[in-house]
Amino acid sequence: MSAEASSDPLFGKRVTVEQVEEGHDLAPKFDSAGLIPCVTTDFHSGEVLMVAVMNREALARTIETGEAHYFSRSRQQLWHKGATSGLVQKVVEMRIDDDQDCVWLRVNIAGGASCHVGYRSCFYRRVPVGAERQTGTTLEFMEHAKAFDPKAVYGDAPNPTQL
Amino acid sequence: MSAEASSDPLFGKRVTVEQVEEGHDLAPKFDSAGLIPCVTTDFHSGEVLMVAVMNREALARTIETGEAHYFSRSRQQLWHKGATSGLVQKVVEMRIDDDQDCVWLRVNIAGGASCHVGYRSCFYRRVPVGAERQTGTTLEFMEHAKAFDPKAVYGDAPNPTQL
Repeated sequence: MSAEASSDPLFGKRVTVEQVEEGHDLAPKFDSAGLIPCVTTDFHSGEVLMVAVMNREALARTIETGEAHYFSRSRQQLWHKGATSGLVQKVVEMRIDDDQDCVWLRVNIAGGASCHVGYRSCFYRRVPVGAERQTGTTLEFMEHAKAFDPKAVYGDAPNPTQL
Repeated sequence: MSAEASSDPLFGKRVTVEQVEEGHDLAPKFDSAGLIPCVTTDFHSGEVLMVAVMNREALARTIETGEAHYFSRSRQQLWHKGATSGLVQKVVEMRIDDDQDCVWLRVNIAGGASCHVGYRSCFYRRVPVGAERQTGTTLEFMEHAKAFDPKAVYGDAPNPTQL
């Protein structure tokens, strides 16, 4: 853990495994790139909306404001979700996992959407598994219409998907 | 994408952004370490149980068997979840995200648990956010008893938590 981390009043030092796993201090572990993954689910439906990463600033802003902030790896900057699209995510609950290297946000999106392709969830396709594969191995779309038109919202901004 | 990938009949080639985002082919993106993150939720409660990673073999085994397989970074080997503890995760549904660099498993754990510390979910603590912080900034435990005794299940196996 860097010296910078221990000087941040929001985040505690990681001292022992017991303290990290069984304690009451928030002592998150950022990876070598300074990032921590975050799973975001819809508070009402339980659906996984997206998985992204946060840096220290994004995690601190999310805790302070109650609105989801991430770190955009494609743009290499703080990303206040909804700043462009208006589809802000209000945090109803934040959880941290056992070893504190992953965050779970339960958010309210007020009928909105979270996927840059225009769907409600980024996880709009099902992969046939096990016995299901006997009826086909192609991805099945679980959302049949987009919640918004990405062209109208993002215009000609670069698509974040990398091949 | 490596030559190995294109020769794997389960996984398609990533050719265009449109094919990856809007198509019916499973064409997952593994990172430079050959891994893809996976969020696992309880099919019944919607609770996020854990976040882990898969390599090609783990993803293929999960698809073929319908039981969750991951890649253990601490042990550097294929990890059939539940092989030690008996707490196997039966996959009810697998989803893939827009750019196919993240997997979501919805699993049935039949009343069991998924966290090596002994809790049902790895995300057993809540972080106060926004206005909640006025009533305290310490983590709040959301599970008040462990689902199993990790000492009895794992014995003296090394704890995977890294400081």
